[in-house]
Formats: sequence, structure tokens, C-alpha cells
Amino acid sequence: MIAVIKKNTSKEQIAHLTSWLEEQGVEVHPSYGVDYTVLGLVGDTSKIDMELLDSLAIVDTVKRISDPFKQCNRNFHPEDTVIDIGGVKIGGGHFAMIAGPCSVESREQMIAVAKSVKAAGATLLRGGAFKPRTSPYDFQGLKAHGIEYLLEAKKETGMPIVTEIMNANHLPLFEDVDVIQVGARNMQNFELLKELGKTKKTILLKRGLANTLKEFLMSAEYIMSEGNGNIILCERGIRTYETYTRNTMDISAIPLLHELSHLPVIADPSHATGKSRLVEPMAMASVAAGADGLMIEVHNDPAHALCDGAQSLTPDNFAHLAGKIQKVREII
Amino acid sequence: MIAVIKKNTSKEQIAHLTSWLEEQGVEVHPSYGVDYTVLGLVGDTSKIDMELLDSLAIVDTVKRISDPFKQCNRNFHPEDTVIDIGGVKIGGGHFAMIAGPCSVESREQMIAVAKSVKAAGATLLRGGAFKPRTSPYDFQGLKAHGIEYLLEAKKETGMPIVTEIMNANHLPLFEDVDVIQVGARNMQNFELLKELGKTKKTILLKRGLANTLKEFLMSAEYIMSEGNGNIILCERGIRTYETYTRNTMDISAIPLLHELSHLPVIADPSHATGKSRLVEPMAMASVAAGADGLMIEVHNDPAHALCDGAQSLTPDNFAHLAGKIQKVREII
Amino acid sequence: MIAVIKKNTSKEQIAHLTSWLEEQGVEVHPSYGVDYTVLGLVGDTSKIDMELLDSLAIVDTVKRISDPFKQCNRNFHPEDTVIDIGGVKIGGGHFAMIAGPCSVESREQMIAVAKSVKAAGATLLRGGAFKPRTSPYDFQGLKAHGIEYLLEAKKETGMPIVTEIMNANHLPLFEDVDVIQVGARNMQNFELLKELGKTKKTILLKRGLANTLKEFLMSAEYIMSEGNGNIILCERGIRTYETYTRNTMDISAIPLLHELSHLPVIADPSHATGKSRLVEPMAMASVAAGADGLMIEVHNDPAHALCDGAQSLTPDNFAHLAGKIQKVREII
Amino acid sequence: MIAVIKKNTSKEQIAHLTSWLEEQGVEVHPSYGVDYTVLGLVGDTSKIDMELLDSLAIVDTVKRISDPFKQCNRNFHPEDTVIDIGGVKIGGGHFAMIAGPCSVESREQMIAVAKSVKAAGATLLRGGAFKPRTSPYDFQGLKAHGIEYLLEAKKETGMPIVTEIMNANHLPLFEDVDVIQVGARNMQNFELLKELGKTKKTILLKRGLANTLKEFLMSAEYIMSEGNGNIILCERGIRTYETYTRNTMDISAIPLLHELSHLPVIADPSHATGKSRLVEPMAMASVAAGADGLMIEVHNDPAHALCDGAQSLTPDNFAHLAGKIQKVREII
Repeated sequence: MIAVIKKNTSKEQIAHLTSWLEEQGVEVHPSYGVDYTVLGLVGDTSKIDMELLDSLAIVDTVKRISDPFKQCNRNFHPEDTVIDIGGVKIGGGHFAMIAGPCSVESREQMIAVAKSVKAAGATLLRGGAFKPRTSPYDFQGLKAHGIEYLLEAKKETGMPIVTEIMNANHLPLFEDVDVIQVGARNMQNFELLKELGKTKKTILLKRGLANTLKEFLMSAEYIMSEGNGNIILCERGIRTYETYTRNTMDISAIPLLHELSHLPVIADPSHATGKSRLVEPMAMASVAAGADGLMIEVHNDPAHALCDGAQSLTPDNFAHLAGKIQKVREII
Repeated sequence: MIAVIKKNTSKEQIAHLTSWLEEQGVEVHPSYGVDYTVLGLVGDTSKIDMELLDSLAIVDTVKRISDPFKQCNRNFHPEDTVIDIGGVKIGGGHFAMIAGPCSVESREQMIAVAKSVKAAGATLLRGGAFKPRTSPYDFQGLKAHGIEYLLEAKKETGMPIVTEIMNANHLPLFEDVDVIQVGARNMQNFELLKELGKTKKTILLKRGLANTLKEFLMSAEYIMSEGNGNIILCERGIRTYETYTRNTMDISAIPLLHELSHLPVIADPSHATGKSRLVEPMAMASVAAGADGLMIEVHNDPAHALCDGAQSLTPDNFAHLAGKIQKVREII
Repeated sequence: MIAVIKKNTSKEQIAHLTSWLEEQGVEVHPSYGVDYTVLGLVGDTSKIDMELLDSLAIVDTVKRISDPFKQCNRNFHPEDTVIDIGGVKIGGGHFAMIAGPCSVESREQMIAVAKSVKAAGATLLRGGAFKPRTSPYDFQGLKAHGIEYLLEAKKETGMPIVTEIMNANHLPLFEDVDVIQVGARNMQNFELLKELGKTKKTILLKRGLANTLKEFLMSAEYIMSEGNGNIILCERGIRTYETYTRNTMDISAIPLLHELSHLPVIADPSHATGKSRLVEPMAMASVAAGADGLMIEVHNDPAHALCDGAQSLTPDNFAHLAGKIQKVREII
Repeated sequence: MIAVIKKNTSKEQIAHLTSWLEEQGVEVHPSYGVDYTVLGLVGDTSKIDMELLDSLAIVDTVKRISDPFKQCNRNFHPEDTVIDIGGVKIGGGHFAMIAGPCSVESREQMIAVAKSVKAAGATLLRGGAFKPRTSPYDFQGLKAHGIEYLLEAKKETGMPIVTEIMNANHLPLFEDVDVIQVGARNMQNFELLKELGKTKKTILLKRGLANTLKEFLMSAEYIMSEGNGNIILCERGIRTYETYTRNTMDISAIPLLHELSHLPVIADPSHATGKSRLVEPMAMASVAAGADGLMIEVHNDPAHALCDGAQSLTPDNFAHLAGKIQKVREII
């Protein structure tokens, strides 16, 4: 950790700060410049409260050199983590194709979609039972019934299932769910993360709308620090000034997360763009950039089909995409 | 609600969509342009799922004309809401000055700060007992003990208290807390909002780091839709590309929230800027723009004082600021 | 164009506005909702000043339905534009690989890099002679000498050259330059765009740091409206809150620009990310998303080589990348 | 300047880099941590190319400690700069009120507005003759005629005038203009800045839509480094994800620019918000935060007046605002 001390700070003030830092168990190496003094802090700096240090009047800036995430850090765990989800592997060269409808709507829909995405190459089935909605007046999902229909679709097809949790009190309902998703809006719901860390479930953690990669990894660290290392990271678009797409998909997050962490990284082009015609190019781009998996919305719902082409792909579109993805993976 | 239909859409497709919309109980008024057709939807459009409509292949864009927030909307409740917190009023011309330390550190600290901010003009006491931290390794607050010390400071000074909740399961601990704060990271923790909506407590709702004003009001609506209308909105800075301040404080949110909603609006310049020397100018600006209150970090902690000037103000700085604020309020 | 009129607007005010709009040659189709009235404007709305209309007190919002860009719009020119640059084609299935150093540093460097990138598969040579720098104290480029060295490298290798212009008064120096680049900071330097529109040169127009795709296309329209349709669009990253990369590369811009416009679209992963180790994955992703070309920084400068691996690729890295790109293109 | 060297860098590589840095005239002070080595660079680091250094493979990050701006830096010039514009002073306690229409439309309009804003307390007259517009098809201003009408209004009222330049070749037309404005889109048009630096005119420099404060000051530095120190900085809103206002006005920029620089700082609430009803609260907030002046759009144009209340204020609104501003200034 480095602390840059402001011009015109007295030697006494610097000595004061130095003793305080040393009391907290770090060595302090000063470097005196013309305008500024730089203190290099060496040792276990994890106990230093960086925000407090930064807030001191004599401190210009503080920079943490070592990354604050430890358990998900590739430096301390160089090999890729491979997660096994009921026989489906992800990470370390294993690619997962997660597909299914945005919301679980009925038993029939789930079973029909499950069969068609399986036939087209999906390895995991997704579907939303609890739906986070901006408005309290919008459809909030089928909740427990939604999970029930997912489990039936799992039974019919043998595919492990992925579905989102919004409240740790609902955990008993997720007992037979294979992968529990944490949505973008809950990425920093630390209380939820801690509870999930106490389970052994695989957690699919989505990046928050306006969170940096380091914050994203710190949220993974919350889960890991409670003992659960089965985490899949998911890039799903960030909020920018551009209004043409729902979010701006940050494809560079994929190679960067691989560099910083050993956890598997997947991409969700459906939510990132909000436009079905962008799903294929952005899915291809994600795989070309090294994604370990994709999460794609697929429906076969007549209400949507009526008007031909919602944000989701049809099973046929999805099968076509899965074929192209396979070819790109062979090159990578 | 308006739906713009794409060029080259057939009359049959438009007719199809029109019947579907009419079945959901809205009247459809088409307007045929050279390149596009526009459907004006009139009636109770709150049941129309805007995202679904927008996702249809023949639809270019959808625009909701009526605001989706109802109970917090000034259109349906033109007078300012005035909230009474144990005798301290806020809104409709009543100004609240909330002050106290970032974190509750000890009984002595809380009582000392409470006395000094009260003497300097504060009307409500704040202090964090549960602390949302990006890192699981950072100090997470004194939790139940923190609330206990706040309650003792309340008893000593008579000031109502404000403190943050992170988990609805902790609600029993907040029984004697006057104002429950929802932090920026939990602004879209809809499960928490719904639980708070079932209480009668005053809720201080902070704007999320990357949330629009409409999303902010929809989160207030979640609380109100469960029956609790005692909400104070708080602008605390948004995330932008500028790195010189911790966040960019959006002062224009203050007059805009007043225009859109009848709820009281306060500002938190301490968290918005992260720099104590900006607290005074940004507090002044907030009041000049019409804020109904301020939330200011004040400490009297020797560890900070040692190095003279953390991000918080000292009680003396705060007293000086409170005097200037009073003068600006007389003009407004 | 649609204008949404606010609640409580009188019939007289609406009639007034309607006559004013009709005087400007558009038909007005009103649609009366419960809360709002919507005016659909049909006809040649290009003469209506949208900002003025939006600013009127009785107007809630204005939405332009037809795109404001015409000459670069795919609706009016469905086939891909193919540009021929001294025999090298780009667009409509033709892929261009532009490579070279960030700055022209010397005659020897340019000739050496030109030979090695040509051998590795580059089809166009880039190099900066005029360098836009944030600081007036930083190196501003070799200027006229830089162009001279580029022309010598062109003579030696036969590769057409690409270099940036910062001032229309420098145009005489660009007489033998094949492609003139407009940098991100000048994307809305409308005076420069207009002058370039009067030439017949191919213009490589980079997206501004914080510009929307529609603004980007309007800047292309400035050039086209003066008579020059030889434009290559280049995505090079946008400014977001994420600080881990220099910019956030918006890969979705590639398929979106192809949808909106017939002009060729290339990507510059070197500037978008600022990190050499991200160039390969982001180049691959760009091609997988449909880019018509890439612009890659390559150096063979001993000062950089010394420390092994600047932001630019070495000629060897570039040759390796070019091979992988070729394979991805075969799938697309 | 500090360079953080990556883990696993060999001693030889560090020694190599150290010699290279020393050759460029700086002293290198290493500090060896467990994971990283930090090099403190002391001396005249202005010649070190920070981007180059940052791009080296062994370098993790580079941080400039001394600010890269010198002439506009308050450290080297602690007193406020006061600029005298034909007898109207700004900075160092002198407040300037700049008012007038967005565009110059006619001789009559300019004279009428000039008289009314003068009566209401304006000290400088603004009006756009050259208009930067996103679309080439929108009105581009009256150009030379616009300046002519401004000069007539100046003659009639005695008020110095402010108008925008878009092309250094137009400078001869600006001979009698008192203050030359550089718009947000040209903030990094370095060629234009350099030409303006060779004049003795007062330059009103607007912050770019997505530029940091440090970039803003570096643009001022471009003008100053050519010899012209008569610069007024203007905050006019930045681009964020929020769509409710045209831009997000960054009020904190006002105290921060005052802290970093000795130049006068004004605010333009009309362009920042794009909504006339926000002009008053944001003008008040700007003054409360310490602005040295305001730039306000005022019209008295019957076409606008017809529909009662464009984005500009009417002369009456402006007079009312000027009165309130005066009172806030007395407190500050």
C-alpha cells in the first residue's frame, strides 16, 4: 500500500502517522520527493482501513498495491477452478451452455422449452421463478410454483437448473436447485452473499449494473470467505450513457476476470443488450474473448411467437447459434 | 403509452397487436406516418408489460407517458408530505439537520458526538451500527451494540436516531429506532423494501449509485405499495467517469424529485464527495437548490483528530456550517 | 416525430402549437389520452427544430421516429458500401488489417515496422504524425516529417497509409495520404468534418469518448453531406466508471452500426483497452461480432522491446493474432 | 511520480528500467514490498512519458503525484486571477452575470434582449453566432451577421460580448468580441486552443461532456502555454446514464476547480439541465458553491413566448433570479 502525503506536511505529522501505521503492524518506507512524500507500507496491509487513511487531511491519495481479494485471486490459486454441476463441468476448458425462458410461466412451457434447448445443445436449464422488477406493480414471478415447474423440467430432461434468489429466507425452496443465481441488483446485498457462502451450492453471481471488476470480485470474496468456493462470475452489461442498448456489454471483463481470478466466467448477451438480434453477435464475441459459458434466453411461447421475435431467441435460433459457437470454440 | 411500430410491418401484424392490446383493456389510437406507425394506448396501461411490448420484433420503441409511480407521485398528491419524527418535522418547509459519526464506535463516542451536534443545531442523530462494506475483511460495524449505544445517546439528548438496516431479519433490533436508513446498495433490494413497507417506521431511502430518478421513485413506491408512506428521499451522489470525487453529487435531483414527488428530499454531501473540505460548499448548494434537510458526518474521535481532519467534519466545523445554512434557508 | 403534451394544457395552447407546426409543413395527428395528449407529426419533419419543440413549456417530451441521418442510413442504401483504398477493399465482406506504431518516430522505424506488419498480413499501414495529447508538454508528433516517413514506408512496401489529421489547414500535407483519420476528440469538430467532406479521401472516423451511436452517425453525415461518402467507422472504446481498462470497448456497436448504416465498421482494440494483453481477445471478439477490419498498434522499437511488451504488440504477436483472426473470419 | 512494478519482475529488469529513468534525469527511490516493488521518481518528471511507462509489461500502474498542469495551478499562483473585460471584472470576489439568447436571430432581437438583461442586472451579453449542431441539417447560426448584430447590441448598451468560435480561421471576425467561448465539443480541439493562446482575448472555456477536471485544466494549460492567461472556466454538465436532464451538472466541480486552479469559475445551468424550470435552483446552487459568475439563456422572442416558457428564461424570470442570486452572494 502506498500513501502519498501532501506538500507542506510537517515532519512531526509524518512521524505521527508513521508510528500509528507501525502500531498496526506494517513497515513504513518513506520516499521524499520535491513536492510530496510517499510512504510505502509493507507487510500485512489488509488490516489498514484504506478509507480512513485516505480521509486524513495530510494524505493526498492512498493506493492499495496488493489486490484486496484473496480467495478468488489467481495469484494465490493459479489453476482454473472447474465446477461440477451434477456432472456438467464449467471452467478450465469446460464450456457450459445455459438456456431457458426469462420467466417460468407454466409447467407445460418449462418442459417444452427444456426439451428443445436440450436438443439444441444446452447443458443447463434456466428460468426465473422470483423476478426482481423495478416496479412493484409488475409481475413478480411464480415463486415457489416456478421452482416446482423447473424441478419437473429437470426430472424430464435430466438437465441441472439455474434460478435466481432474492431473499436468503427463501433458501429452503432452493434445496434441489443446482445453481443459485444472484442478480445484478443484489451483487452488493452482502447479507445475502454471506448466507449463500454458508451453503455448498454453486452460485452464479452477476456483475452489478455499475460495479467495477474489483467490486465484483470482492462480492465473490464475500461468498468464499464464508466457505463456499463454487462461484461462476457472469458479465451482463453495465450502465453507460448509451441508450441504444439496454446496457453496454463489457466484453473486456471476460479476459480481465480470467486474469484476476481463477473462477469460471460466463456472459449473458440477452440481458446485456435487450435485443434478440444482438444475441448472436455478442454471444460469438464473448466466446471469442474466452468465456467459459453463455446464458441465453430462449422461449417457445405462442404469445411472443405471435409477433415473431421477442428479446429471447426461438429454439431454432438457439440451435443455429449453438452450432456457430462450437466452431469458434474450436479455434480458441 | 405509445408504441412506435417499425417500417414494413404489415397491416395484419398491426391488427394482431391491436387486438392483443385491446384484450388487455386499453384503447388503441393509431397514427400512420410515412416511415412508421404510432399506436397511442389510452386507458389503464399499468397492466401492460412494457418490456414485453418493447421486445416484440415489430415494435421500434415504447414510451410510457404516465409515470409508473403512483403513490409517491405529486400529480396525485400535490401537497408536500410532512413527516413527524418524534416531534421533529421534515418536508413542506420544515428542515431537518441529521448529524453524527459514520460508524458507532463506542458508548462514550456516541454520547459525546450527540451532545456536540445537538448544541450545534442538529435535530436528528445518525450513526452506523450495521456497515455495508465492499470487502468482507473490513469492519462491519458494532451491530446490536451499535444500536444500543445510539439509543443511549438518544436517551441522553432527546434526539431521534437514524441508522441503516441491511437485513429485514434484523427488524426486531430496530424497534426503538426512529428512522431506518436503506443504503445506496440496497435501493433495489426489493425484498427488504417490501418488509419495510409493512412497518410504520420512517424510511430514509438513499439513491443507488447508478439509478435514475424514476428507478429511485419506483423503490419508494415499493415501500408505499405495502402501506408505509413515511419516506425521506436522499441524494448521495452517482457514479460517473470522474475520479476526483468519490461520486458525482447530482444536485439537480433535488428540484426534480420535488417536482415529481411530494416526499421530502434531503442531501448527503459527506458520502457524495468523500472529501471533508467539499462538505460545506455542497451542503450550501443543496440547500440553495431546495433540500428539506442534510445528513452530515461529524466525529469527535481523537484517532481522527490526531491527524487533523478526516472526511467528517468536527463539531466546530459543523456548527459553523449550520449557521451558514440557516442564512441561505432564509432567502429560499 | 411525436410530441407528448403535458396534462392540464388548454385546448387553445394545443391548437396554437398545432397551427405553428402545420405552418412548417407537417401534418399533425392528435391522440388524446387520459393524462396526456400525443401529437403525431407526419411529413418532412427534418425542418422541425427538435430542441426548440422540446423546450416549450407545454411539451413533455419529443421523440424523433425517423432517424436524423440520411446518407449513411442503411434504410436508404441497403447494400454495404465497399471502399477501395489503392486496391485494398473494405466492407461488404472485404476485411482490412491496419497495423503500425502509435507514433511515427523515425524513417528507419517506419520502414522496419511496415515490412514486418506486411509480412504478417497487414493490408494498410498506420502511424501517427500529428498526435493529440492531453498535455501541451507531451510529445506532439513529428508532424510533416512523420508524414514524409510514412510515405517512404508506403513506397518501400506498397501499403496504403492511414494517419490522423487535427487541423484542416494541414490538408495540403495529406495529399498523398490514402486514409485520413479523425480522432475521438475531434469526432464533433464539425468544421474539420465539413472540410474533409469536400475532399475525395477515405476518412477513418473514430467514435468520440462519450458519444452515442446516433451522434457518431451524425458526424459521418456531416462528411457525407458535403459530398464525400468514403467513410470507415471505428469503435475505439467509450468512457465509463470502470478504471481497470483505459476505456470500455463497446463491441455491440459493431453489429448496431452495421444495422443502422451501410458504411464499413472497424475496431481498434489497442486504444480501447490500453493493455497489450487484451488486444488479442478483444480483436477476436470484434471479428466474431462482425467487424470489417481491425486497427492494431505494432512496434518493433528497441526501447519498448527492452522491457518486453508495451501496449503495442510486437510483429510476432501480431502475426500470431492475424492467423487466428483469419480462422474466425472463415466461420463468420 | 510513482511506478508500481509487478510481482515476479527480475532484479535485472528493474535495474534496466531504473537506468533508463535516470538517463531521463530523475532520481529513482525503490521501496521493496512483499508482492510489489514501488519506484518513487523524484525530480523533473514532466519529461517522463507516463503513458509509455504505464505500457511496459513489468509496470503495474503509474501515478503522477505532482499535477501535470503548471500555469493554471493554484500551487504556483495562490491568489485568485481577476480578469478585466472592458471594465467588468470576474474572479477574486468579482461576480459576472452573463445573459442573452442561445442564438443570435436578428438585429432587433439582440438589441431588445441586451437592453432587458442589462436592466435586470446582467454585466455581459452572450449570443451564439456560430452554432455547433449535432446534425448538419440543423440551423448553424447567422455566422458573421450574428457577430455584427452582437456588436451593435454592445454599442447600444455598452455591455461586453461573449460568443463562441468553432474554427481558428474565423478569428479575424472576432476582433471586437470581448470574450471568445470554446464550446464543450471543442474542449480538446488542441489546434484551436493553441491559436487562442496566441491572442490576448479572454477565453471562456467550457468543460467537455465527458472530461475530467484534470483534462479540463490541461486544456486551459494549452491556452496558457502559448501566452494567454485570460481564461474563465465554465462547468456546464457532464454526460451520465441519467436521462431526465440533458446532462448532470457537476456542482462539486466549482469548489474543486477553485482548489486546483486560480482561474475564475462560472456555471451554465441552462445548458447543463436543458430545462428552464431548473435554471433557478441550479443557478442558486452554483452561487452557493462559490461560482464567480453565471451564464444564463434569456430570450424575449415572441415565437417562444407564444407557448410560454422555452428552455431560456424570460427577462422577467431573469430579473427575479438576479435578485435572489445577489442575496446568496451576500452570505457567501
